[in-house]
Amino acid sequence: MTISSKEEFKNFVNEVRQAEGYRDPLAFGICRVDVGQINKNLTLQAIYPIINWNENFGSGAIFISTLKELNINLDLSQSEIVLPISKEFVISALEKFQPFLVETIENPKSHNNIAVLKAIKDQGDFENFRIVFLFEDAPLKSAESTYIKLYALSQKKVKIRTINLNGAFANLQNVAWSENKPIELQWLRDNEISLKISGKYPKIDFVDKFPRMLQHIIPENNTRILDGSKVRMGAYISAGTTIMPGASYINFNAGTLGVSMVEGRISSSASVGDGSDVGGGASILGVLSGTNGNPISIGKNSLLGANSVCGIPLGDGSIIDAGLAILEGTKIYISPNEINKLIEINLNLKELFISSKNSFKGKELAGINGIHFRQNSENGRIEAFRSKREVKLNSDLH
Amino acid sequence: MTISSKEEFKNFVNEVRQAEGYRDPLAFGICRVDVGQINKNLTLQAIYPIINWNENFGSGAIFISTLKELNINLDLSQSEIVLPISKEFVISALEKFQPFLVETIENPKSHNNIAVLKAIKDQGDFENFRIVFLFEDAPLKSAESTYIKLYALSQKKVKIRTINLNGAFANLQNVAWSENKPIELQWLRDNEISLKISGKYPKIDFVDKFPRMLQHIIPENNTRILDGSKVRMGAYISAGTTIMPGASYINFNAGTLGVSMVEGRISSSASVGDGSDVGGGASILGVLSGTNGNPISIGKNSLLGANSVCGIPLGDGSIIDAGLAILEGTKIYISPNEINKLIEINLNLKELFISSKNSFKGKELAGINGIHFRQNSENGRIEAFRSKREVKLNSDLH
Amino acid sequence: MTISSKEEFKNFVNEVRQAEGYRDPLAFGICRVDVGQINKNLTLQAIYPIINWNENFGSGAIFISTLKELNINLDLSQSEIVLPISKEFVISALEKFQPFLVETIENPKSHNNIAVLKAIKDQGDFENFRIVFLFEDAPLKSAESTYIKLYALSQKKVKIRTINLNGAFANLQNVAWSENKPIELQWLRDNEISLKISGKYPKIDFVDKFPRMLQHIIPENNTRILDGSKVRMGAYISAGTTIMPGASYINFNAGTLGVSMVEGRISSSASVGDGSDVGGGASILGVLSGTNGNPISIGKNSLLGANSVCGIPLGDGSIIDAGLAILEGTKIYISPNEINKLIEINLNLKELFISSKNSFKGKELAGINGIHFRQNSENGRIEAFRSKREVKLNSDLH
Repeated sequence: MTISSKEEFKNFVNEVRQAEGYRDPLAFGICRVDVGQINKNLTLQAIYPIINWNENFGSGAIFISTLKELNINLDLSQSEIVLPISKEFVISALEKFQPFLVETIENPKSHNNIAVLKAIKDQGDFENFRIVFLFEDAPLKSAESTYIKLYALSQKKVKIRTINLNGAFANLQNVAWSENKPIELQWLRDNEISLKISGKYPKIDFVDKFPRMLQHIIPENNTRILDGSKVRMGAYISAGTTIMPGASYINFNAGTLGVSMVEGRISSSASVGDGSDVGGGASILGVLSGTNGNPISIGKNSLLGANSVCGIPLGDGSIIDAGLAILEGTKIYISPNEINKLIEINLNLKELFISSKNSFKGKELAGINGIHFRQNSENGRIEAFRSKREVKLNSDLH
Repeated sequence: MTISSKEEFKNFVNEVRQAEGYRDPLAFGICRVDVGQINKNLTLQAIYPIINWNENFGSGAIFISTLKELNINLDLSQSEIVLPISKEFVISALEKFQPFLVETIENPKSHNNIAVLKAIKDQGDFENFRIVFLFEDAPLKSAESTYIKLYALSQKKVKIRTINLNGAFANLQNVAWSENKPIELQWLRDNEISLKISGKYPKIDFVDKFPRMLQHIIPENNTRILDGSKVRMGAYISAGTTIMPGASYINFNAGTLGVSMVEGRISSSASVGDGSDVGGGASILGVLSGTNGNPISIGKNSLLGANSVCGIPLGDGSIIDAGLAILEGTKIYISPNEINKLIEINLNLKELFISSKNSFKGKELAGINGIHFRQNSENGRIEAFRSKREVKLNSDLH
Repeated sequence: MTISSKEEFKNFVNEVRQAEGYRDPLAFGICRVDVGQINKNLTLQAIYPIINWNENFGSGAIFISTLKELNINLDLSQSEIVLPISKEFVISALEKFQPFLVETIENPKSHNNIAVLKAIKDQGDFENFRIVFLFEDAPLKSAESTYIKLYALSQKKVKIRTINLNGAFANLQNVAWSENKPIELQWLRDNEISLKISGKYPKIDFVDKFPRMLQHIIPENNTRILDGSKVRMGAYISAGTTIMPGASYINFNAGTLGVSMVEGRISSSASVGDGSDVGGGASILGVLSGTNGNPISIGKNSLLGANSVCGIPLGDGSIIDAGLAILEGTKIYISPNEINKLIEINLNLKELFISSKNSFKGKELAGINGIHFRQNSENGRIEAFRSKREVKLNSDLH
């Protein structure tokens, strides 16, 4: 069935979307897959030229209706669907997209989904592709759907900690990565002797379930990632972030919400606000260690000093001094005078300070703005006071 | 001489091994070598498809007897022997292994040493191979023997700190590594102008005497090494270990004895027990710095907090808080009550605690189980007490 | 114009250099450039087979006179000149260098600039080369001149902090680096769909304005850089330095002045003296953070303990204990007895100690020799005293 005008296209799409039993996919896309060297049924990596997240429902409708036309049984009540694609599918879908083909050829970015189909058709190989639909934000059931969510995070289509990532670890295989390609460890073992004898043993960059973000994602022009090994696929890196190669690491479902200098670790589920600086070797604890599962957000314009450890959420304009660890259980002294200053900028926290106490646990001070943590170097007491300086990032010179 | 039955093979091997002056090699193997671009006599890297360590004495006997047949002078009283191999050697040895050839072709892993010979014969290039024997655990005399010991460590055929590695540094050349291949620095200098003018200057990954472990070793299926640069050849990484890319590093002759999360440094000669967690940026000092040469073992289910420093051996179920450095000379206060609790689980240490003192040096507390080190954030005193929680690793989610 | 003898060459050079309006270049060289995939006028990387820094003025005169002969307008009053080269230029310059050609062919290193010309002529491609002159140490105006200064630093032709690097960031493009080659991020975006569909999306090693030092510089034979990502182009790494892969990083215009073990961070403008050890995870603050712009030098034979933070200049034979942060504002206690010992080796500092005070701010103690900083683990006070031990590096075993 060929559609010959944009008007006809629009009507067709409406018809499909209003049909009984149809539902718009939350996310969908076509990916190229790397399958196992031994187990060809195992998807080791899914590479998406583009993903659709809560958008482009027309393209979604075309994809689904084309599959149905080809008599492929689709149960849209499932949380996700992953299917191979065929030459017939590509050609048939392109026929429906015909009103947009000229525009797509002129500017592939004008219609990404069509450009993907066209690129597949042009290269003439239909073997290693999958079409993937997510109909709800449910636990993950496949490597393909796991990758679509990791893309959604790293392309900043969804915020950190807002989507269901259960099953991600179970659906990804632990593999050796060589030149962007995943290799089954057992295949390496099976071929170790001949590979080594011939001098062709591959250069293994790393071994993990997840690829690195730079294998899949193109950062913004003002984002710097000085070592690709430091950012896992699924990390959320906002424009203007610089990630230094010393002791930094950003896990998946973690990252920066604005311009940020990162020389330390942003563990899983942790986020760092615009203008904040994670100093060399600083650690923001993740939900998996030391935070009792409470994810840590760092506010704006805050500073974690070199080799500091942050185990509580921090507000805006706050500072943890170099080398200092502030954990949930850390006892912190604040003088009455400084309490008054902190109340001025943290009105909602009056209750915390209403008693006459001067010693607080780290977790009581979670999320306070403008607080500066320091260890008194004369008596070893950990103290907090109103941060005296704005934390400014030198965007120019790192 | 062709051997035609397994029985004949067995008799032949027994004859060889019982001959006057014969001794079984402690270790042996055939390796492919990368030699210098300038100095062709210099072995820069030795790649072993398999090594034999205190095992497969029959294959060893075949190798040695074949060399003797070919009139190669072997002095088995040497601590090690390294020889080139020839086509004659390969063919002659394979004739002796003939009773096992069918099995080897069906399943190369059934007879690794034979599979190595066959792979060399099949590819028809005999130039860049060496056969290597170690007859005792003596100081190293060659790159080839150094590599066999590094393999023994990384394939966990020997335990950390149990073999003689003297001479390792002297026998390895400091080279530039590009795509798994070692390049002499002088060769780069000699060819710098033409390489750069032609745009073919190689990508140098690193410059070191040692390769990375992942160039040679295939980890277990549940082991993750998120950045290959973090693990030197000769490291001992037990199944189930995860090594994060932030601030971690595992040197040769150091590693993990079980499932472990490693986000910090395990310096030379240090070991970490099953279930223990080396937090982000944590440092375990090596024999070369800060431990007066005493190697550090961390017990089971222990935790080194983020950015902590461990300069003493730790027992099981112990904790060093985030950001805290416990060195040999650190003075640590323990209350009488906590001393009693620690004695309960460290019966052998009663003597240490028998006096009425409450202040201990770090090295006095070496190896104690269930101890938790913390800096009192009210007065800066470093204190220890009975660890209140089990250290559990979340194997799922890192 | 062909020059046929060394005498004639010398006379010609003198004539050129004494001509009205001529001035010797401070630096010059011919580089191969990588230009933008989209913007062919944009230099993304400049690769110098050799640079001349305050040297080889004869070659400089030949280059400049050859350009003038070819009617290229050169304004030597500019701070820098960057020009494409042509076949005519190469041939014409080589004619002038003819008296040295035989020597150059025999030993290219005997006349590096001639060898560069000859290599370009031999490969017959003149498109992607630039000739670059710096006439003064002024703010940078081009990528090519920026690279020549980064080379000068990394080849140790100039000392850290002695040259004008203003404009470096502005002249370098933020690009994706793949196999030593810079790729415009926009080009990746424009071609993402086809690259991913065909399975040819490049392996991006990192995204930065600067390349890594090992892409351009060949270290000395006894220098080890265990992870190339840890050293930015423009770093100054002295012979005998070892840089471990754990938490280390050396920025441009920063580095080591002698043999050094580096397992931590040497931030921009910081330097580390001969025999000093930057422990695992230790941070030396850069001019961009925490030092109020005062660059930090560490003296000789000093030690920064694991995970320590150094925010002040240190003299020789000094120590900061593991895990300790010494910043400009840190208050440090020194007993009268230790003050006396420190005065013995810091005669020039008598004034500082002349008062009867015992508490000093970190910045007051900047540059003192033989000082050891420690936190008293009984009362949390940060104290300093005369360093009791020499800091010896174990050159053998790391």
